[in-house]
Amino acid sequence: MATKPQLFLDPKRCKNNIERIAEKAKKLGLTFRPHFKTHQSIEVGRWFRDQGITGITVSSVEMAKYFAQDGWNDITIAFPFYSGMTEGLKELEKKVSLRLFMNSTSDIEHLNHSLRNPFQVYIEIDAGYGRSGVHYTDNEKIESLIGALDKGDQSQFHGFYIHDGGTYQARGVEEIKKRIQASHSALKKLKKRYPSAVTSLGDTPSASVLEEFESVDEITPGNLVFYDWMQVQIGSCKPDNVAVWVDVPVAQELSGNKAIIHGGAVHFSKDFIIQDEVKNYGQVLKPNEDHFTPADHCFLSALSQEHGTVSGYKNNLLQDDGSLRILPIHSCLTVNLFDHYRTPSGNIIKKRVLS
Amino acid sequence: MATKPQLFLDPKRCKNNIERIAEKAKKLGLTFRPHFKTHQSIEVGRWFRDQGITGITVSSVEMAKYFAQDGWNDITIAFPFYSGMTEGLKELEKKVSLRLFMNSTSDIEHLNHSLRNPFQVYIEIDAGYGRSGVHYTDNEKIESLIGALDKGDQSQFHGFYIHDGGTYQARGVEEIKKRIQASHSALKKLKKRYPSAVTSLGDTPSASVLEEFESVDEITPGNLVFYDWMQVQIGSCKPDNVAVWVDVPVAQELSGNKAIIHGGAVHFSKDFIIQDEVKNYGQVLKPNEDHFTPADHCFLSALSQEHGTVSGYKNNLLQDDGSLRILPIHSCLTVNLFDHYRTPSGNIIKKRVLS
Repeated sequence: MATKPQLFLDPKRCKNNIERIAEKAKKLGLTFRPHFKTHQSIEVGRWFRDQGITGITVSSVEMAKYFAQDGWNDITIAFPFYSGMTEGLKELEKKVSLRLFMNSTSDIEHLNHSLRNPFQVYIEIDAGYGRSGVHYTDNEKIESLIGALDKGDQSQFHGFYIHDGGTYQARGVEEIKKRIQASHSALKKLKKRYPSAVTSLGDTPSASVLEEFESVDEITPGNLVFYDWMQVQIGSCKPDNVAVWVDVPVAQELSGNKAIIHGGAVHFSKDFIIQDEVKNYGQVLKPNEDHFTPADHCFLSALSQEHGTVSGYKNNLLQDDGSLRILPIHSCLTVNLFDHYRTPSGNIIKKRVLS
Repeated sequence: MATKPQLFLDPKRCKNNIERIAEKAKKLGLTFRPHFKTHQSIEVGRWFRDQGITGITVSSVEMAKYFAQDGWNDITIAFPFYSGMTEGLKELEKKVSLRLFMNSTSDIEHLNHSLRNPFQVYIEIDAGYGRSGVHYTDNEKIESLIGALDKGDQSQFHGFYIHDGGTYQARGVEEIKKRIQASHSALKKLKKRYPSAVTSLGDTPSASVLEEFESVDEITPGNLVFYDWMQVQIGSCKPDNVAVWVDVPVAQELSGNKAIIHGGAVHFSKDFIIQDEVKNYGQVLKPNEDHFTPADHCFLSALSQEHGTVSGYKNNLLQDDGSLRILPIHSCLTVNLFDHYRTPSGNIIKKRVLS
């Protein structure tokens, strides 16, 4: 009997996702430095360690502290440095070798005075996506940053990092390959100019589907540990690769094949994709199957705080316990709203809760 | 120095919001049964108690349990009953007088067998908004529900409840008044037919601006404890009534009056409004003013997990500690992402964290 919305994680699917990418990286000679912002769980982190992973990526000082507790001592904080991070970094450097993103010479000078141990620095590159970073053609800025890093007692220039958000707009493998070209091309040019720089690429779609990474040395995808319905639509994975889902109680059956579920924005987040010209906040699965098959035209069409509206509902979609099984649109944000995972065999896997 | 995104709550603004609506309800002879889903804090709940409030509204069994800990013993669970709630209700009824939403005669029979104490039942009415509830013209369904309630040993028919989501689409006081008419009219018809039924109305915009409530006996708004930028746009309040905000560190200043902040979907939620034809995920305030004044054309224009992009950024908008002050679009969802509030004088107010 479903008593409330419950986040599930299938360790087998998840470990398969980790193993697949770890083996691909090994085969292609790439460093795999996974982003841990998606799962935010010490226990899931250990499954990466089992695959030989020693360096990880996170998106905040707080998240670095959480994973440092479990002995991770080689951590990239993939977020532009700001001076409010300094005290946290001083604590972290006692046991962690840090890699940071820095984009101002004055920050670099400041941090050289604040930290006592060597730290590596990536220059985040904007290859056209335009969220953050230095544009790859801005040689003057890049030169001045590398100059400041070379001059500092602790800072060491490590390389260039691109998170290409553009591939998340792709639909299909060919379009992912086409969209990632701008990033590849930018890294290639930078590599030619700075041959010893490490080049790092962050997105899940290209990490999932490419077999050639050209001038890329390192990949840091995060979402592929779990995937989600958005990644299925992008073409990064199949439904059966998605390793997390939410089982929700049905609260009211309505006319017009609709139903109200207990499951809202505080369980799924309000991320959506446009599919068949309407908003989809979560994809309903067919019940009780070993393999994940999306139910035809049955999805979360609206969300308020605790209520969700399911369109295309039929009561033969209910699981044995009376719940509907729903793949999240964006697993990073859905998972962020729970403090634990439940496995199909009933185990609890703890995770970090934000504050 | 801002070290991370921080949720703030101004007790003075918040208590003013509570007092204003409590006094209005008193003056108009309305029962005020506030929804506690927005603040989710025992301490904030006590500020309502200070205004003489004895009955509250919540949106889940878990939330009812949280507030029951602090002695609240008259609680409406404003969510359609489903059988998975039964065990939780059995625990709650030991110390709480329950009011429930029920929409099926078989559920009513089931619950009469499961509970040992009397419980009150609202029939949730759909006056056209179409999320959940029974359509107000569906006399047959309403009659059958009241019949089942009368027949049950514990169940008592209490009245009709409408949450009118339509008023959240309004822009301006006149439009709120116009949009709420359908709900007023539905409640009026039901009241004529069932004179002893209590009529209850849930939305914040109409509770904020109406001075006449026609056939309404009770109001249960939640958001007005804090308000937010969406409610300012709707016309429910002024910017200076908003009692919560997020101070965020600026991580990178970009060309074109843009900046990257540490503050993303895991701090604000992904709710947005369309304003001047673009998405607004949060409104920047002018700095260091006693009264809240929105900064001209400066707002959160994009969010990823931890990053936010501010458009219309100028560095003279920074507070003394180097942060930007941002009013959330939807305070219920923003607040849900933090486990405490900080007050301007530096106190910590704890709140419930979801799981």
